[in-house]
Amino acid sequence: MRRILLVIAYDGTNYVGWQKQQNGLSVEEVMNKTISKFLNEEIEVIGASRTDSGVHAYGNVAVFDTESKIPADKFSFALNERLPEDIRVQQSMEVEANFHPRKCDCIKTYCYRILNRRHMIPTERFYSTFVYSPLDVEKMRAASTYIVGEHDFKSFCSAGSQAKSTVRTIYNLDIDKDGDMITIVIRGNGFLYNMVRIIVGTLIKVGLGVYPPEHVEEIVAAKDRGMAGQTVAAQGLTLVGIEYLE
Amino acid sequence: MRRILLVIAYDGTNYVGWQKQQNGLSVEEVMNKTISKFLNEEIEVIGASRTDSGVHAYGNVAVFDTESKIPADKFSFALNERLPEDIRVQQSMEVEANFHPRKCDCIKTYCYRILNRRHMIPTERFYSTFVYSPLDVEKMRAASTYIVGEHDFKSFCSAGSQAKSTVRTIYNLDIDKDGDMITIVIRGNGFLYNMVRIIVGTLIKVGLGVYPPEHVEEIVAAKDRGMAGQTVAAQGLTLVGIEYLE
Repeated sequence: MRRILLVIAYDGTNYVGWQKQQNGLSVEEVMNKTISKFLNEEIEVIGASRTDSGVHAYGNVAVFDTESKIPADKFSFALNERLPEDIRVQQSMEVEANFHPRKCDCIKTYCYRILNRRHMIPTERFYSTFVYSPLDVEKMRAASTYIVGEHDFKSFCSAGSQAKSTVRTIYNLDIDKDGDMITIVIRGNGFLYNMVRIIVGTLIKVGLGVYPPEHVEEIVAAKDRGMAGQTVAAQGLTLVGIEYLE
Repeated sequence: MRRILLVIAYDGTNYVGWQKQQNGLSVEEVMNKTISKFLNEEIEVIGASRTDSGVHAYGNVAVFDTESKIPADKFSFALNERLPEDIRVQQSMEVEANFHPRKCDCIKTYCYRILNRRHMIPTERFYSTFVYSPLDVEKMRAASTYIVGEHDFKSFCSAGSQAKSTVRTIYNLDIDKDGDMITIVIRGNGFLYNMVRIIVGTLIKVGLGVYPPEHVEEIVAAKDRGMAGQTVAAQGLTLVGIEYLE
């Protein structure tokens, strides 16, 4: 028995998210069916990140166990021939039999894209959120300094989270502007339910001038979801990648 | 009677192209129906560029005549409330009654995106073409110098073109590489049928090393479609904008 790790990219537009659900098709379900059929074995993948409906990935991670003798690096090409076009395995390799993608220490990187202009660009509608009023990126950068570091992120966690602790460490939060597109890249040792989307919603309020950058320090300290900005739309969010430590 | 000009962006994925067709829904048809219903007048737009099925636009141009007294700049917002999400008017303004978007001198800018990597990224599948083998961008840049300038582009024109002359001027052809994404921006006073897609197909052959950059000079001189590269896929192409002169 070998454990195979897959790095998986997907367009989340047509899925209910990573995790299997009653109400529609999930990426996990497509992976299970495709690999099971290919190997003629009953395969259940274990995913690293349960991305929400509409959220995209360049590099989510999943593992599965198989009796197959196929060289590990061949799985990416073999599965891509059988997967729908909106899911593509980027890499495949063998890992230790006890490697668990949710139980090993890792750093996750997310990216959130905001289109800040007078009118939406249709080709960006599934891959960014649209903000009409001009955002002050310098203020958003100033606010981001209160997010970086180890904090209790309870203010940035939606109800329904099962996390035991709400303390997380954010290593980097970079805000880049290229024309009308603002890209926020955030890297941390873990993220609470909707945490990236609530951080972005809060930074947007700062960018609009609703409150000053310094107020974000108070929002963090309050440990109160009601203080932070709204949860921005899923389609702007992409799980860029997961780095495993050891 | 006033003539209103619209700058229109669209995601071409779900359309048969700009122009009305028997075999499916066109952007032109959606524009005609939406404006006619909004104004309660029979409106027929005149489009500047008849983009093909799957080709996108940030700034195609169309005009229509109306008896309406609505301020010209309000049309963009009013129509965007009524158009499907994959079409968005970027700008609206009044122009001279005799302004014809296909009969006035203009400069058009197109952009073509090539994803050059080991596996496709699903979120890019409708907005780029995928090339697995590594492309030599320096060689592609060297080849592009033979395209820039006034030339007879007969070698780069698909059968079925109705153009009287095949002489066109390309002002700029810039090739940019950002990570795995190669973006080709081409600006000229007019383009023959499939001309951008055949130029890109030719540059890809140079990038793959099929022939040296200098060979593109011979391809231009030959005035023979059979000499040039293949017509690359529509989805990588975007009409960026049209600048009207004078």
